[in-house]
Amino acid sequence: MASQKRVGVVLSGCGFLDGAEIQEAVCTLLSLDRRGTALVAAAPDIEQRHVVDHLLGAPAEGESRRVLTEAARIVRGKITDLAHVSASGLDALVFPGGFGVAKNLCSFAIDGRKMKVLPEVERLVREMRAARKPMGFVCIAPVLAAKLLGGEQVKVTIGDDAETAAAIESWGARHVECRVEEIVVDERLKVVSTPAYMLGPWIAPVAAGIDKLVSALLELAS
Amino acid sequence: MASQKRVGVVLSGCGFLDGAEIQEAVCTLLSLDRRGTALVAAAPDIEQRHVVDHLLGAPAEGESRRVLTEAARIVRGKITDLAHVSASGLDALVFPGGFGVAKNLCSFAIDGRKMKVLPEVERLVREMRAARKPMGFVCIAPVLAAKLLGGEQVKVTIGDDAETAAAIESWGARHVECRVEEIVVDERLKVVSTPAYMLGPWIAPVAAGIDKLVSALLELAS
Repeated sequence: MASQKRVGVVLSGCGFLDGAEIQEAVCTLLSLDRRGTALVAAAPDIEQRHVVDHLLGAPAEGESRRVLTEAARIVRGKITDLAHVSASGLDALVFPGGFGVAKNLCSFAIDGRKMKVLPEVERLVREMRAARKPMGFVCIAPVLAAKLLGGEQVKVTIGDDAETAAAIESWGARHVECRVEEIVVDERLKVVSTPAYMLGPWIAPVAAGIDKLVSALLELAS
Repeated sequence: MASQKRVGVVLSGCGFLDGAEIQEAVCTLLSLDRRGTALVAAAPDIEQRHVVDHLLGAPAEGESRRVLTEAARIVRGKITDLAHVSASGLDALVFPGGFGVAKNLCSFAIDGRKMKVLPEVERLVREMRAARKPMGFVCIAPVLAAKLLGGEQVKVTIGDDAETAAAIESWGARHVECRVEEIVVDERLKVVSTPAYMLGPWIAPVAAGIDKLVSALLELAS
């Protein structure tokens, strides 16, 4: 019997406007569990950039929440500080999307092409790459791969958003347009991406794309 | 072509310890969307009973959050105050689980057999019953059906928890033991239930039970 694969899932909070896109995160967990993998959920133990009232779609002034504490809601408390996760304990790694990726894991939402990546995120992605282990990036998360692996001309998709695609190409990465139910696979760098809620419109097609991403990721991990 | 069915999903917050069980809620949305239904997400516009730190599993002192505002995170802001939803606009109704059901939609977590149901929840369930429209109850949510429809001896499951089953029977309802991937259907009252995270252990079997619940619900709605 093949040993159970351990897959890291990095969450950026809980809620698409200030954290992880919840539906994308849960669809990722579902696709992984259906394939019998062991989950290593992780998030950085930092303050969220801000808190957004998801009913109003506007910042909630005066509120503060921590990324790790909120991300714990999605995985029923079974989560680890990202600082304690290394590539040696993983067979593959996935980043679901949500503005939390662009606000908490890097500064793309604020700084665009001049964005910086959270050091713990950069460390883990570089470890995975050095170990030739596959990574999946959902929705806006491919900006992380593009920024960190742009020097190796990584191939990714964020759907068809021209401005984000231009930023991706400005770092040396290649952007490929892609439908929501589909994925883009960079076989050479073992990087898989899918547009998810960069395109939407609702959960079934997003889940279809994520399921293909997880399938391709586990194939690359074997 | 059959007209698109409108299905209400009542959320009780965002996070299993003080609100809706996120994975159950998202699996419900996924099963509904895959079957082409139109979603009417709703939550009561009330304060949560309390806020729980999901990393520590302990109450977060001094914090307050509103049920509707937090529930909005799960459905990307597309949610309505429960007070504005009536059975006339729905073909079916689902309650995902989570402690939020037992803390915010009723007081089962505190008062046990002597629990009270939130008036807006009671109103909508009674409207659905009067209109002979089907309802689905996931995880701990069947206590709502048992309390409100106990006089009609509704048949439900919460898995195999003896204490909760005894409370359910104390109200005149019938409890049936059930595995996590399965459902219990009360054809007479058009009530479907599944144990979900009352049994767990993780998302794939929970999703399987919820998918059967949604399938049975839409069958009853046709």
